[in-house]
Amino acid sequence: MNKTKEKVNAAIVIIGNEILSGRTQDVNVVTISKWLNDLGVKLEEVRVIPDLENSIIKTVNDMKKRFNYIFTTGGIGPTHDDITSKSIARAFNLKYGYHKEAYSILEKYYGKIKFNVGRKKMAMMPINASLILNPSSGAPGFIVNNVYCLPGVPSILKSMLGGLNNKIKGGKKILSKTISVQTVESEIAKSLEKVQQKFKQVDIGSYPFFRLGKIGVSIVIRSAYKKKIDDCYKEIVSFLEKKKINIRG
Amino acid sequence: MNKTKEKVNAAIVIIGNEILSGRTQDVNVVTISKWLNDLGVKLEEVRVIPDLENSIIKTVNDMKKRFNYIFTTGGIGPTHDDITSKSIARAFNLKYGYHKEAYSILEKYYGKIKFNVGRKKMAMMPINASLILNPSSGAPGFIVNNVYCLPGVPSILKSMLGGLNNKIKGGKKILSKTISVQTVESEIAKSLEKVQQKFKQVDIGSYPFFRLGKIGVSIVIRSAYKKKIDDCYKEIVSFLEKKKINIRG
Repeated sequence: MNKTKEKVNAAIVIIGNEILSGRTQDVNVVTISKWLNDLGVKLEEVRVIPDLENSIIKTVNDMKKRFNYIFTTGGIGPTHDDITSKSIARAFNLKYGYHKEAYSILEKYYGKIKFNVGRKKMAMMPINASLILNPSSGAPGFIVNNVYCLPGVPSILKSMLGGLNNKIKGGKKILSKTISVQTVESEIAKSLEKVQQKFKQVDIGSYPFFRLGKIGVSIVIRSAYKKKIDDCYKEIVSFLEKKKINIRG
Repeated sequence: MNKTKEKVNAAIVIIGNEILSGRTQDVNVVTISKWLNDLGVKLEEVRVIPDLENSIIKTVNDMKKRFNYIFTTGGIGPTHDDITSKSIARAFNLKYGYHKEAYSILEKYYGKIKFNVGRKKMAMMPINASLILNPSSGAPGFIVNNVYCLPGVPSILKSMLGGLNNKIKGGKKILSKTISVQTVESEIAKSLEKVQQKFKQVDIGSYPFFRLGKIGVSIVIRSAYKKKIDDCYKEIVSFLEKKKINIRG
């Protein structure tokens, strides 16, 4: 049996002019990130790039060695602006054409008569890629080396992640604990810094919030080690009590 | 008078573990992108990176020559995990310390007695940076060369953009027109591609949607030239009518 790796990381490449133009609000990063957390994979970078072949090739080549997993979203549909599959084939210098299994899945899904040119395009990809099955709308995604190509439509993407669970080999799962307090960041900044200096294997994040007209701060403790989180938690609660700062949960 | 540049581009660097961990949904990209559109600046890349000095320095150095404007969000607050200001100073090899004007703004905002160590930290930045004034919560952002450092809290960021309007010199404004149709992408893919080939100075995007249980496609035509958009629009409407596809607006 393989030993669990300490750290496994990932990046997302969002391919989409509609995100860059402000027309569409991305929601896929949150979906993929939470799914990766559960698998013990840490999302360490996201890039949003235009639907341009050169951008896709350059970005994927830049990132493929720095991350264990890369997920692309968008650009695998039937229209002329869907150029992800072709660009990924070029980035890896692979033959691009009809993928036999994808072709047969799509032909079955639509039926021979309705299987038109646009739909056939969705079977075009690196011809030896592994497929990512699509339980909601037929057209599969695909995997080349460590690059996983997913669609951009959030509901479809979400439905495809489950099928990948056994293909992702995660590391130690990152755990977290949140303390919400009724104060402002500057009141706790110094004490929090001292705790962070003491606990090197823990990441302490501090996030101000404004909810229902009230202000507060969420202190988030993250680590692969539960014991460290618990110790760090106690230390933070102790200085909050000394400062008479209300803890909300 | 300077001639308006044909193309002015920008990138956003989101500095924030909370976005990468899936804890927080970014909404600043849409805000900044729409504001830039109105100023004639095209957002061409977004990166989300962790709160790590090396990542910030590397990313900013990677991008500062490729884009006319770079906007960073996040990491300029009072806590230990707010390291954007220091990292930007390092990236540009500038002296980091108390910024006189920022210090005096913050001292006035909080009053001498409440101006504690955490709050004073928000006056630390490259000491000769230009400030970005903050009408909602005092603490200013700052500008170094073409890099504009903004906070991560969406409401505060939004309130600060207006003050930058006269500092951003945009190019030709990108216009757009949307046609929503009751069909699926694969039914229009081929015709749409032909139109795209004919109109080189226009970007045609095709985006499937699922709204109120109905499916459809938004065709978005984008260009700096209104006449080209109008001509392209007519051509698309004409093939839609031939195909008897319902136009919804």
